[in-house]
Amino acid sequence: MNDKSAPRPGGRSARIQAAVHQAVRALQQEQGRDGLTVPAIASRAGVTPSTIYRRWGDLAQLLADVAVEQLQPEQPPTDTGSFRSDLLAWLLQYFDEMSSSPGRAMLRDVLGTEGHAGAGKCDSFVRQQIEAIRERALARGESPVTADLIIRIVVAPLMYRILFASERPAAQAVEVLFEQVMNAGDT
Amino acid sequence: MNDKSAPRPGGRSARIQAAVHQAVRALQQEQGRDGLTVPAIASRAGVTPSTIYRRWGDLAQLLADVAVEQLQPEQPPTDTGSFRSDLLAWLLQYFDEMSSSPGRAMLRDVLGTEGHAGAGKCDSFVRQQIEAIRERALARGESPVTADLIIRIVVAPLMYRILFASERPAAQAVEVLFEQVMNAGDT
Repeated sequence: MNDKSAPRPGGRSARIQAAVHQAVRALQQEQGRDGLTVPAIASRAGVTPSTIYRRWGDLAQLLADVAVEQLQPEQPPTDTGSFRSDLLAWLLQYFDEMSSSPGRAMLRDVLGTEGHAGAGKCDSFVRQQIEAIRERALARGESPVTADLIIRIVVAPLMYRILFASERPAAQAVEVLFEQVMNAGDT
Repeated sequence: MNDKSAPRPGGRSARIQAAVHQAVRALQQEQGRDGLTVPAIASRAGVTPSTIYRRWGDLAQLLADVAVEQLQPEQPPTDTGSFRSDLLAWLLQYFDEMSSSPGRAMLRDVLGTEGHAGAGKCDSFVRQQIEAIRERALARGESPVTADLIIRIVVAPLMYRILFASERPAAQAVEVLFEQVMNAGDT
């Protein structure tokens, strides 16, 4: 996200951002991403195109900002009673979402935009959710593997498959890698 | 790469493709990617803009095609005498290239373009180089680990780091993962 587009909550600037983001989401839903133009978004949001250009630079930066906002976790991972089941449930849900059409579109918008901080945010969101699961596990007296190991052994290979093999990772593929990281933690 | 843009070598269609690709590469070098427009590329290549739109659809598809062409390996991996040193040398070079500015730009062009087969090609090129190293190893009587394992343990985590952490993987990070896959093969 650009520094310019992270305004003080509630201010005029924040209201403009909310209106423009909402216009993008509405137009994306109504007509897909191909038809999106800055003038159409501006008209829908009730701002001038130059407001959008001044603030976001171009359409790609705006779409990447909206994608990052959508990638942000809405709630902490579900507490299912153990580190093992919390982590598996979160992984299955995350990769189900990321490999869906909207998930792929978000990844495209974030990874295709030069100089956008969205990819780093995407990684931060993943770590944040994994750390929430780990902290709960530590509080229960469990010994969870590190977030780095989970990312290296499970998240990275599944993301590679989504991005480069255009494959929707089957739940089984998630489970195989999940067992590997659980075993790596035991040794 | 679009089906439309893989013409019979030497034909008129192939000559147009070569001229347009060359114009893109020249303009990218002279003025970076920001200034690139279809009319400027057409003018440089000596074709009309409508030739480009008809053939590639839009600028993003054309840039992704050019990126895929640049990602294609120019030669087989160097033969350094053993599977171990061949694979390490290739990994170090590949990730040095992919994490450079031109490498990142190619990944952005490929991963940011909807419905483009470039990402799959990128994976195929990686497998092709790894298989060439493996075949040489088999001919020497060595027992190389599988390409799938190399991609899962070494390539995917390094690619994740380039894409999401915007980090240039240090040679040391490549070597640590390389040792892991070599050990995984022993067990």
